[in-house]
Amino acid sequence: MLHEKLTPPETKPHVSVARLRRFWYVACQSSDLGRRPIARTIVGVPLVLFRDEHGTPAALLDRCPHRNVPLSLGRVVQGGRLECAYHGWQFEGSGRCALIPGLLVHDERERRAPAARVREQGGFIWVYPELDEAPQVEPFELPVSGPGYARAVREVETEATLHATLENALDVPHTAYLHRGLFRGSGGKRNEISATVRRSGDRVEAQYDGEPRPSGIAGRVLSPGGGTVDHWDRFILPSIAQVEYRLGDDVHFLVTSLCTPVSDFRTRMFALVEFKTRFPAQAVKRLLEPFALRIFGQDAEILRAQADNIRRFGGEQYMSTELDFLGPHIWRLLKQAEQGEPAGETIVERAVKFLA
Amino acid sequence: MLHEKLTPPETKPHVSVARLRRFWYVACQSSDLGRRPIARTIVGVPLVLFRDEHGTPAALLDRCPHRNVPLSLGRVVQGGRLECAYHGWQFEGSGRCALIPGLLVHDERERRAPAARVREQGGFIWVYPELDEAPQVEPFELPVSGPGYARAVREVETEATLHATLENALDVPHTAYLHRGLFRGSGGKRNEISATVRRSGDRVEAQYDGEPRPSGIAGRVLSPGGGTVDHWDRFILPSIAQVEYRLGDDVHFLVTSLCTPVSDFRTRMFALVEFKTRFPAQAVKRLLEPFALRIFGQDAEILRAQADNIRRFGGEQYMSTELDFLGPHIWRLLKQAEQGEPAGETIVERAVKFLA
Amino acid sequence: MLHEKLTPPETKPHVSVARLRRFWYVACQSSDLGRRPIARTIVGVPLVLFRDEHGTPAALLDRCPHRNVPLSLGRVVQGGRLECAYHGWQFEGSGRCALIPGLLVHDERERRAPAARVREQGGFIWVYPELDEAPQVEPFELPVSGPGYARAVREVETEATLHATLENALDVPHTAYLHRGLFRGSGGKRNEISATVRRSGDRVEAQYDGEPRPSGIAGRVLSPGGGTVDHWDRFILPSIAQVEYRLGDDVHFLVTSLCTPVSDFRTRMFALVEFKTRFPAQAVKRLLEPFALRIFGQDAEILRAQADNIRRFGGEQYMSTELDFLGPHIWRLLKQAEQGEPAGETIVERAVKFLA
Repeated sequence: MLHEKLTPPETKPHVSVARLRRFWYVACQSSDLGRRPIARTIVGVPLVLFRDEHGTPAALLDRCPHRNVPLSLGRVVQGGRLECAYHGWQFEGSGRCALIPGLLVHDERERRAPAARVREQGGFIWVYPELDEAPQVEPFELPVSGPGYARAVREVETEATLHATLENALDVPHTAYLHRGLFRGSGGKRNEISATVRRSGDRVEAQYDGEPRPSGIAGRVLSPGGGTVDHWDRFILPSIAQVEYRLGDDVHFLVTSLCTPVSDFRTRMFALVEFKTRFPAQAVKRLLEPFALRIFGQDAEILRAQADNIRRFGGEQYMSTELDFLGPHIWRLLKQAEQGEPAGETIVERAVKFLA
Repeated sequence: MLHEKLTPPETKPHVSVARLRRFWYVACQSSDLGRRPIARTIVGVPLVLFRDEHGTPAALLDRCPHRNVPLSLGRVVQGGRLECAYHGWQFEGSGRCALIPGLLVHDERERRAPAARVREQGGFIWVYPELDEAPQVEPFELPVSGPGYARAVREVETEATLHATLENALDVPHTAYLHRGLFRGSGGKRNEISATVRRSGDRVEAQYDGEPRPSGIAGRVLSPGGGTVDHWDRFILPSIAQVEYRLGDDVHFLVTSLCTPVSDFRTRMFALVEFKTRFPAQAVKRLLEPFALRIFGQDAEILRAQADNIRRFGGEQYMSTELDFLGPHIWRLLKQAEQGEPAGETIVERAVKFLA
Repeated sequence: MLHEKLTPPETKPHVSVARLRRFWYVACQSSDLGRRPIARTIVGVPLVLFRDEHGTPAALLDRCPHRNVPLSLGRVVQGGRLECAYHGWQFEGSGRCALIPGLLVHDERERRAPAARVREQGGFIWVYPELDEAPQVEPFELPVSGPGYARAVREVETEATLHATLENALDVPHTAYLHRGLFRGSGGKRNEISATVRRSGDRVEAQYDGEPRPSGIAGRVLSPGGGTVDHWDRFILPSIAQVEYRLGDDVHFLVTSLCTPVSDFRTRMFALVEFKTRFPAQAVKRLLEPFALRIFGQDAEILRAQADNIRRFGGEQYMSTELDFLGPHIWRLLKQAEQGEPAGETIVERAVKFLA
């Protein structure tokens, strides 16, 4: 280690880490799980994913119960079983050990590999990482695009907590600074607009009224004539960040970011973008993709710097203002869920005026 | 660290690490210790090895008592003393500080470098890493090859515990999977054979009856006509793994692996191979070496994956069957030795039938 | 980690680390602080340094109070304020948060970034790392070179404690070994000389009597005719190492090493070399620079090996002799200062004869 940590003054050890294992998370896109087993860690639980001979996906703890080698080094054999690379023990998708090569009498006591429940839904492989437990909840129902909508999926991995990644994905004020010129803040004058925040049950949403069309490149391309947009930012437990824009009837963008906490300071995000505009979908994709990737890259970079600094200081010391519309609410929802508190019926509604 | 550890469920903190310092271990081959001091760590004790002016090997704790610089950065000077690179303090092989440059009155109080006993025997430099202690035991007597035997030494370093390395070296069932096609398991049908395990005093041995000649490449080359082999796998305290094969009177292989625990998760193995066959020794060496190196490489790779996984999970959770003939016995012998229990007189004998 | 630490026997956990925050340290050379903020860590406190619109330097804790991103990623904007890269919060050199973009009512409660006092003096930016505190002491007054003196500044970073770095900078006996042939110890016979050590208040000094001109390359170049030198080695709290040589009236070297503890095992040294000789200053610089850089490099290498070994062993176990003129005194002064003991009036004076 080059720079040992000397805890600076005025630091509290708090870090916004929530470990929610009793929810469904996206492990990968359906198309990424083929004939070879793959390793994925979800909320700190190392898993091996594979498909049996019918193509049904399964997930086991990524550790052979025999000598603790990662099962993800193995292969899927006849009968759709996962065979360990070291001694050839074979496991079914349920975790049952079906064969120990060489053994004359097969005795199944305690030889299971713990298994996680898996669903294939909406083009994704979803996993419930609390092992050997029947989920009480369902995976998030992805929005179904109507006719005329185009769709794209992009993956980004951030070296940041789930909370920091979610807050960043739904935060408006940073866009004028971190993404200066790309999104907002290309120098135009600021308008006073108003945000209304509603929290209820498993979600919190900010709705913006009177927001001028974003002043950056993308906004100008999509709506050369200006105008105002309808804009919502939503968080849905345990890890969904949704941003929605409407400009009149013709233009609609819905970005649903399915976040998967890999470990405390690493989060994988599957961003599903659905949109319709007045222009051909392929042209819009080609136009917006480099712009979106640059924004993702700037966010990943600042989140990494933030996480590194929090670890260097031995903890967080956040100072929020009323412009942090969603971050503190997201944190409260995550902590309530971690502590198993029932989803509140209370609806918090608050209007904040600000300059954007 | 990219992936922080989140301890998964159902993990016990146990790891098969034994720290036996009151035994002899191979530090290096005789030919590797020349005029320059070299650094070797044995059971976690950092040592510097050097030869005095008569060629006699010595080992000191690798830390100058003056300012704690590694003595292995120094050089051997006139009189066969080891001179520290920083201030030139000179040490004899006994650890005595014989000279402090510049000092007018040399006073030897408390200026020793702790020393480890060293023996040069059988082509190896052996070290007893309990410092400044007279050993009650002798280094392992290497087998003396009779006439007609060829000999080779190969070194491998594994990132694995001593126990995992020893078990792997003596384990039969993995060979059909990890070394598929090379050694066993190239697809032929399996035969029922029987193993007898004997534990007594400082060792445990498995003897196999009715084992067909290994079906992989090597077996086919050495005994094209098939037949059965006599086969023994032996562990001898503290760290010797011995594999012996006989095919009739003409073919004999004895592989003695002298293992040196470097640290908890790193083991150095000096494999001494002695053999006779019906073919010229050089031709057999040329034929078998790439094959042996590939096997060593596969073993090193799986051992590393195993060790990484054990550390990732915060401990081991092994599940043994009766096919794990030697591993549990080796562990018992290591733990008994660590706790200073006397070598048992008990002889455990057990015959296990299995498919190989 | 490849080699896990197994604490060897006979090791005490002591490490010569002092954490003195109530002193001034050099953060950088004046010329290194321009229009862009820079990050510097001093005694473990991460700081961002920048200049306001008048060029006045300032230092803040390198963490935005809002979301804890390093402020050193930001930029200096109109009004000489430092703007955070993430959400654009603006800070004055005092630490006052002067603007939160978008916020309609600016409320300054608790939004300060803690600030460190800064002085620009003698070509360096000095920082007092105890945050938000008015210093009771002054930065070290650099010597003012008289006419005929040349001057050079060189920076070196060592991966070593402040104490080990200071001791090394002022230590005579190692020069004949670590810098063999460069400085002393090119094989000539050794002379008995005498050192007198005086400790008083905030400093300790060794004065050498009858020291022959150094026998290495540098000595021979500077004084081909030989002769004796007047030589002093000085430590001044908290972190100044000063070496002074005089050869008659014509030759004078004064090397003032301003050390900055970055973290426990990392120290940055700003070496200010002032000298006059009988030769043109540029020629002497060209001649001596490669030689000085080689000495710095050898010292950095041995200090790193020393620090690595101390960490590997889990602590120091030093053994001093009367030739360690200054190291133990430096340690006592550092510890007294750390514990806030008043600078002693006692003068310790002791003459030691030795061979050099």
